[in-house]
Amino acid sequence: MTRIKCKISYDGTNYAGYQIQPNGRTIQEEIESALKKIHKGDEVRITASGRTDAGVHAIGQVFHFDTPLAIPEQNWKRALNALLPDDIYVKEASVAGNDFHARFDVQEKEYRYFVLNSSEKDIFRRNYTYYYPREIDINAVLEACKQLEGEHDFSSFCAAKTGVKGEKVRTIFHASCFKEGDNLVFVFRGSGFLYNMVRILVGTLIEIGTGMRKPDDIKKIIEAMDRGKAGKTAPSQGLYLWNVVYNK
Amino acid sequence: MTRIKCKISYDGTNYAGYQIQPNGRTIQEEIESALKKIHKGDEVRITASGRTDAGVHAIGQVFHFDTPLAIPEQNWKRALNALLPDDIYVKEASVAGNDFHARFDVQEKEYRYFVLNSSEKDIFRRNYTYYYPREIDINAVLEACKQLEGEHDFSSFCAAKTGVKGEKVRTIFHASCFKEGDNLVFVFRGSGFLYNMVRILVGTLIEIGTGMRKPDDIKKIIEAMDRGKAGKTAPSQGLYLWNVVYNK
Repeated sequence: MTRIKCKISYDGTNYAGYQIQPNGRTIQEEIESALKKIHKGDEVRITASGRTDAGVHAIGQVFHFDTPLAIPEQNWKRALNALLPDDIYVKEASVAGNDFHARFDVQEKEYRYFVLNSSEKDIFRRNYTYYYPREIDINAVLEACKQLEGEHDFSSFCAAKTGVKGEKVRTIFHASCFKEGDNLVFVFRGSGFLYNMVRILVGTLIEIGTGMRKPDDIKKIIEAMDRGKAGKTAPSQGLYLWNVVYNK
Repeated sequence: MTRIKCKISYDGTNYAGYQIQPNGRTIQEEIESALKKIHKGDEVRITASGRTDAGVHAIGQVFHFDTPLAIPEQNWKRALNALLPDDIYVKEASVAGNDFHARFDVQEKEYRYFVLNSSEKDIFRRNYTYYYPREIDINAVLEACKQLEGEHDFSSFCAAKTGVKGEKVRTIFHASCFKEGDNLVFVFRGSGFLYNMVRILVGTLIEIGTGMRKPDDIKKIIEAMDRGKAGKTAPSQGLYLWNVVYNK
């Protein structure tokens, strides 16, 4: 068996998310269905770096699978793209060592979140940004971002409830924000992210940027370990799984 | 009756075109249905600067309608946007003189056509650009564009067949092309455009840019007055009705 590693982008607009589920089209299902065709009807299971939710996009999602086929490395990209729908695209496909694991070997994940911060809507970006017309003070956001960096228990920024202590400790290596045209782009790099974490972080940072909260509130919100203390969950369509870094 | 003039943008992806037709959703139908709600069930007919085809977008389409309602000018934009689907957007709405006509008073129309000219596809632009990976020589295109400018019989660049001589004479005030990131943007400003004209112009200019034809061929193609002599019709999703200029 050969292990193949793929880097893909997808437009999450018309999907119920990455992971296969009973209702709704999913990214995983489309890719596995393309692989099944390539494998003459045999099922092939793929393993991604992690899930993404309905409406969330990816610029650099990574998955792996094992194949008995002797297809040359450089042909996998074309073969898959020929069978995939036009909103999923394989950017790179290469042979990986059999010990490579797309989920367990993640060293760093980067998410970006795009806010269209303008007085006018842009219908062409309705599925690709969160339209938020009120003025956002980027300096206040940047000050708050600094307090997010480091190892913390991010229970306050997680939608799911679980009881195991310390299970929600994650490290954010980098949190920042920059303007690009009329977009405000939030960047988060970390060891891993909890369910809805980036969207709750962005919702909270926007509240700080509009003066509803102070940059220093981040510290108190983290300490509270209570989802109720953080801001709203920003909508899915502004979120992109931007990049996944591996340690091998 | 008060005449209202509106400037709108729309994403043509999910429409069968601008004009009402028996099969498929249309832009006109959505706007007239919103106006019917505002007019408590009374039908209101709108008149646009012209049609756009299925999949074609607009940044600055213009239409007018007459209303017996005494709604303040500044409220029309909000009222319409509240009722329109999220892929149609009213950018401006204002009171126009009763002699203003959105079609007959057009002085100049501008179309732009976006080609994604890159070695890699971008799934996020699949509905908004024409993906064409081969290298395009922009200087050859610009040379050909010069020959398009002026008053000509554009029969060779028109999909529809009609027999009336001189009916297909139009004036192109400006034809050009520029690079914007990995997009190649074609710009056409003229007195009016024939059915599929911009898309046939772009298809022909791309053939010139890739060396399949020479810039000088434009002259011969125009003289032939034969659709068969021009290039392919470029696909709809790269085309935008960019702006409409009125003489009053």
